[in-house]
Amino acid sequence: MRLYPSDDRSASFVSLDRGEDLLDGLSQAVKELGFKAATLQVIGALEEAALGYFDQQAKEYRTIPTGHVEIASGLGNVSLRDGEPFIHLHLVVSGPDGAALGGHAMQGCRAFVVEAYFRALAGPPPVRQGSPGHGLMVWPGS
Amino acid sequence: MRLYPSDDRSASFVSLDRGEDLLDGLSQAVKELGFKAATLQVIGALEEAALGYFDQQAKEYRTIPTGHVEIASGLGNVSLRDGEPFIHLHLVVSGPDGAALGGHAMQGCRAFVVEAYFRALAGPPPVRQGSPGHGLMVWPGS
Amino acid sequence: MRLYPSDDRSASFVSLDRGEDLLDGLSQAVKELGFKAATLQVIGALEEAALGYFDQQAKEYRTIPTGHVEIASGLGNVSLRDGEPFIHLHLVVSGPDGAALGGHAMQGCRAFVVEAYFRALAGPPPVRQGSPGHGLMVWPGS
Repeated sequence: MRLYPSDDRSASFVSLDRGEDLLDGLSQAVKELGFKAATLQVIGALEEAALGYFDQQAKEYRTIPTGHVEIASGLGNVSLRDGEPFIHLHLVVSGPDGAALGGHAMQGCRAFVVEAYFRALAGPPPVRQGSPGHGLMVWPGS
Repeated sequence: MRLYPSDDRSASFVSLDRGEDLLDGLSQAVKELGFKAATLQVIGALEEAALGYFDQQAKEYRTIPTGHVEIASGLGNVSLRDGEPFIHLHLVVSGPDGAALGGHAMQGCRAFVVEAYFRALAGPPPVRQGSPGHGLMVWPGS
Repeated sequence: MRLYPSDDRSASFVSLDRGEDLLDGLSQAVKELGFKAATLQVIGALEEAALGYFDQQAKEYRTIPTGHVEIASGLGNVSLRDGEPFIHLHLVVSGPDGAALGGHAMQGCRAFVVEAYFRALAGPPPVRQGSPGHGLMVWPGS
């Protein structure tokens, strides 16, 4: 993992090494940058991906594994969960015929080339709280 | 809808409540933030989505409805249309098998969990104008 | 191509004309803005797209052509390659039934409506270097 921060360290590009776990590498970047609230964008390719679909009735994730894929889109954010900065990232990935799969980035996405961008939100970070109605840790609404 | 603005109010995270209409909730956020030009990113999940495909020859939108989906990607912008701030948002959504659908976010997307991010452009906003060649309100080109 | 820059020229919206090549138009925008490091977001629609899938074993791109499509998502960055600002852009596009295709934006994507957003990174730009292990010009990692 390598950082390419802006001079004022309010934003940074990040490059991951081949084989690095996507969420682990990005979490390490967040730690080094000291971000508690930030937005995140990712493009590149993965040696393999693990995508999650949250079953809104069963309240659990199903995991969808893939082979080599492009990261056609990665959008996410950093906020606080259990007092620590936490990355929530969704991916769209695509294979040799271009067909796209989407979902929640789970542990087990392994980098081929990863080019990420973080920008901090200079203000109070959202704090994830358990929501029985969702079965998830979410940012409180109204 | 709840705002999580930066200290200088140049950017904000936004959380929508379960069941809230996606475009209505985000438009309310834009109004409270006072943004006339901004960029927008969204992730989360929807109880149902309505995606539009613009038929470039017939010059009209076709609507594609879905069931429960992840918002794998939401990218958009805020600019002026008819003198008012207007959200233009495109979505990629994905279902239980990960298969992704894309399109223009139409009225009728209902939030399950919505985590959005706006950042204002501190300058003159683009102004949408009717373009007979497109059959759409677009930002004038060259 | 038309720029809608922020007052401090640290960011800009960009509108492309119908028929303009996507990468050529965006590259012209980057040149006029003078950006060497930036993040990029794109939505809109294309008269046709050319998407690339990088075969990680053969180390070459396969090209996937499309007809009229929505740009459901476009995420990218600007960094230096061979001393010049270079755009790396990934797309998710979708057709009349919403089915999404993803990949690397290749030459030959022709604009119908393109609404882009650049934000500069005010710091040293990443520099692409040849990586035999990837078969690509990448940002060096650790």
